[in-house]
Amino acid sequence: MQAYKDILCSRGADRYRPNHQGGRHNVRHSGAAAESPVDVTELISAVDAFDVRFPTSRDLDGSDAMNPEPDYSAAYVVVRTSGGDEGHGLAFTVGRGNEIEVAAIRALAALIVGLPVAEALADLGGVSRRLTGDSQLRWLGPEKGVIHMAAGAVLNALWDLRARREDKPLWRLLAELTPTELVDLVDFRYLDDALTRQEALDILTASAPGRAGRAERLVADGYPAYTTTPGWLGYTDDKLARLAAEAVSDGFAQIKLKVGADLTDDVRRMRLAREAVGPDVRIAIDANQAWNVGQAIEWLRPLAEFEPYWIEEPTSPDDVLGHAAIRRQVAPIKVATGEHTHNRVMFKQLLQAGAIDILQLDATRVAGVNENIAILLLAAKFGVPVCPHAGGVGLCEMVQHLAMFDYVAVSGSMDDRVIEYVDHLHEHFTEPVVIRSGRYVAPEGPGAGAMLHPRSRIEYGYPDGAQWAGRVPEVIS
Amino acid sequence: MQAYKDILCSRGADRYRPNHQGGRHNVRHSGAAAESPVDVTELISAVDAFDVRFPTSRDLDGSDAMNPEPDYSAAYVVVRTSGGDEGHGLAFTVGRGNEIEVAAIRALAALIVGLPVAEALADLGGVSRRLTGDSQLRWLGPEKGVIHMAAGAVLNALWDLRARREDKPLWRLLAELTPTELVDLVDFRYLDDALTRQEALDILTASAPGRAGRAERLVADGYPAYTTTPGWLGYTDDKLARLAAEAVSDGFAQIKLKVGADLTDDVRRMRLAREAVGPDVRIAIDANQAWNVGQAIEWLRPLAEFEPYWIEEPTSPDDVLGHAAIRRQVAPIKVATGEHTHNRVMFKQLLQAGAIDILQLDATRVAGVNENIAILLLAAKFGVPVCPHAGGVGLCEMVQHLAMFDYVAVSGSMDDRVIEYVDHLHEHFTEPVVIRSGRYVAPEGPGAGAMLHPRSRIEYGYPDGAQWAGRVPEVIS
Repeated sequence: MQAYKDILCSRGADRYRPNHQGGRHNVRHSGAAAESPVDVTELISAVDAFDVRFPTSRDLDGSDAMNPEPDYSAAYVVVRTSGGDEGHGLAFTVGRGNEIEVAAIRALAALIVGLPVAEALADLGGVSRRLTGDSQLRWLGPEKGVIHMAAGAVLNALWDLRARREDKPLWRLLAELTPTELVDLVDFRYLDDALTRQEALDILTASAPGRAGRAERLVADGYPAYTTTPGWLGYTDDKLARLAAEAVSDGFAQIKLKVGADLTDDVRRMRLAREAVGPDVRIAIDANQAWNVGQAIEWLRPLAEFEPYWIEEPTSPDDVLGHAAIRRQVAPIKVATGEHTHNRVMFKQLLQAGAIDILQLDATRVAGVNENIAILLLAAKFGVPVCPHAGGVGLCEMVQHLAMFDYVAVSGSMDDRVIEYVDHLHEHFTEPVVIRSGRYVAPEGPGAGAMLHPRSRIEYGYPDGAQWAGRVPEVIS
Repeated sequence: MQAYKDILCSRGADRYRPNHQGGRHNVRHSGAAAESPVDVTELISAVDAFDVRFPTSRDLDGSDAMNPEPDYSAAYVVVRTSGGDEGHGLAFTVGRGNEIEVAAIRALAALIVGLPVAEALADLGGVSRRLTGDSQLRWLGPEKGVIHMAAGAVLNALWDLRARREDKPLWRLLAELTPTELVDLVDFRYLDDALTRQEALDILTASAPGRAGRAERLVADGYPAYTTTPGWLGYTDDKLARLAAEAVSDGFAQIKLKVGADLTDDVRRMRLAREAVGPDVRIAIDANQAWNVGQAIEWLRPLAEFEPYWIEEPTSPDDVLGHAAIRRQVAPIKVATGEHTHNRVMFKQLLQAGAIDILQLDATRVAGVNENIAILLLAAKFGVPVCPHAGGVGLCEMVQHLAMFDYVAVSGSMDDRVIEYVDHLHEHFTEPVVIRSGRYVAPEGPGAGAMLHPRSRIEYGYPDGAQWAGRVPEVIS
């Protein structure tokens, strides 16, 4: 314990300076370095959690049928090592209750503080099971909601730490792991009736030969995006039509509209959007869980003439059988869901039941990179394209790595695949996404994408940051 | 605001004295009083949350395949009114992370503090939707995990408050509501493809004529219980055999054993238990989610000769299709689940998919009494018996009210229905359950069952209560 404190103090001077040089650390998983001794003196020294909230409700950005006034927020994690390195992660929430997520991150911290850094980063599969498997904390889910998202935030911060130390963007780090290293990251518990470890290995092995070529194409051409910016429910018709037309001229081949609050409005807005973008641009629509099963089927009938490409979250995210029933009735409109699908077991069933045409994984809803690898493998097994959910705070920055890894090393395809793009809050991130001609440019900077500028983290800190002080609503209690 | 504070101060003297006299308040729903003016001067003045933990891991009470060392805990709620009344509720957890649940309760408090008491208690359906529907807090579930359990704890405290003011046990309060009042309590969102409001009304109307007779029989005979006390994994063979034999001589017709950690142990323990109880006593077994789907089917084969009555939680609680697959393979062993089933949408699917023979609702996993009424109605629609999960902290005290209400006013039957019973921690409650000849005696005291003795709440308060001070493990952070 004394030794650990000594390390912490002696390294204090560069504690906040991330190490991007790579190679200084002997990391067990890094191929040539495998024979070198593992550094067991460097420990995970702290897991700091911050409540950061952006007052997006003031302009109705992000307004939809279920979320009329979100304040996009991050339960933000910084994992620190005694060697002075940092990894950054976050769980996305929409305002109130972000402090609960922060409390959950703090509860998980005890599971990893004190671990040797090199060992932990070389066995993130084991760390993942440690974070989701604590027998007492698990009760709070299990594997769902606040505690599961917290596990994801911490684990993603560890991935960010590893990527920074290897001086690679996360997508490239993952795409350079061997098939065996990748399946070692996955928890196959509850999965093997749909996907065995061997089947996963086979999928990854089959796509391995094309990795290098696809990575080159990705860097050259980027990854297709679609934009939700025009379609928020709170926007006027004029703003909708203008932003839809702008999206097309910016090169997007797909836009998305929020629906589900009022059918007359939806028909009018859908017509406006179709007129604005023309017949060849895809229009996805998103009900954000507003409907019952039968109601979804009825509501979509008058919208069909405008040829929506997919209907997203038509009903409860928990309703696997409901999605399957809707899908049978509304074809050729595709059914999409996933941003609230809380773990791999639910995704497994959505696929087994033939409930979805499009799988929308999210960077911070499930238990981080590892569970998302499981979900990508499930989707590949069932041949369902993954079109990640993004927007919010940092979701674009984070989830692009998963889609790009999927292209390079798992599905091997960009066909009918798009990453959601929403144009706000990027300026707060140290590696903001870059969109060019309707496509995500592959990030080349090190890390997993979630790092906020320290200035933003402080200014939007809740409730004491400059953006909030004096504005927090009074609560009677 | 000033007026509200005046009320609070003037009533301060009797703030902690629960009012059990009834009749003092004009409550809109109370039949004859419906014409009287509603008291709008009495407000919900506070929602206090407490972290209470019992160190059960010291004796391995409650040990099972997934929970080797639980410290049974309660995120405990006291709702207070400006008139000096109190309502008590709790969410059950198993130790670490109980503070997260407490934080969630505090976040929900702002939704009900300041409401007029009479209006809130007369419209607990509306309050329920308020607690689960807040557009920002909802994101943390939605309707699952920490935030949903917190909504249940707060709502159950309001039910306790109402029952105390009406001077009735909760089961009787519910059983005296009209069918229309009962369906008004239910949120049918996401349910109507399996159960419409009209169908629910029909079920309740059909069983209404027999209510009085059944209430009498319930009071006379009690409600069947089964005991889990013999079967914890951490117990020795001798202790298992002794407690199993004792259970039979105490009048229980069913016991339960934990399984799933080691097959050889399970076979041996199951044989011992069968020898101890004889051929006519039912032995349920409980794997606490330990298995994958195929593994469950394999594991149960060598246990079948001992005729287990049901297999509980064979796999992930989220795996509706997995439970259905297991059920098809292991009959005549029945499949039971529910203590971790996080909301009515999941129960709906378990029933739609034919995944369960036995539905095990829990008093604190879902959003309280209201959602459990929805679940009882779903079970009645599908003809599946409800055998509640209990044990933990106060779960027996709380859930008995739901089973008894089910008997009197919903299913109208006790056939193949049993409430779990575990013999620990009852002494901490002001209305501990009474078991006589293997049956729960119907409680007649007012309230919903969750009220802890103030002494216990303080002594087991975490981390500063006398039972914990000095014992809390040091955490590096």
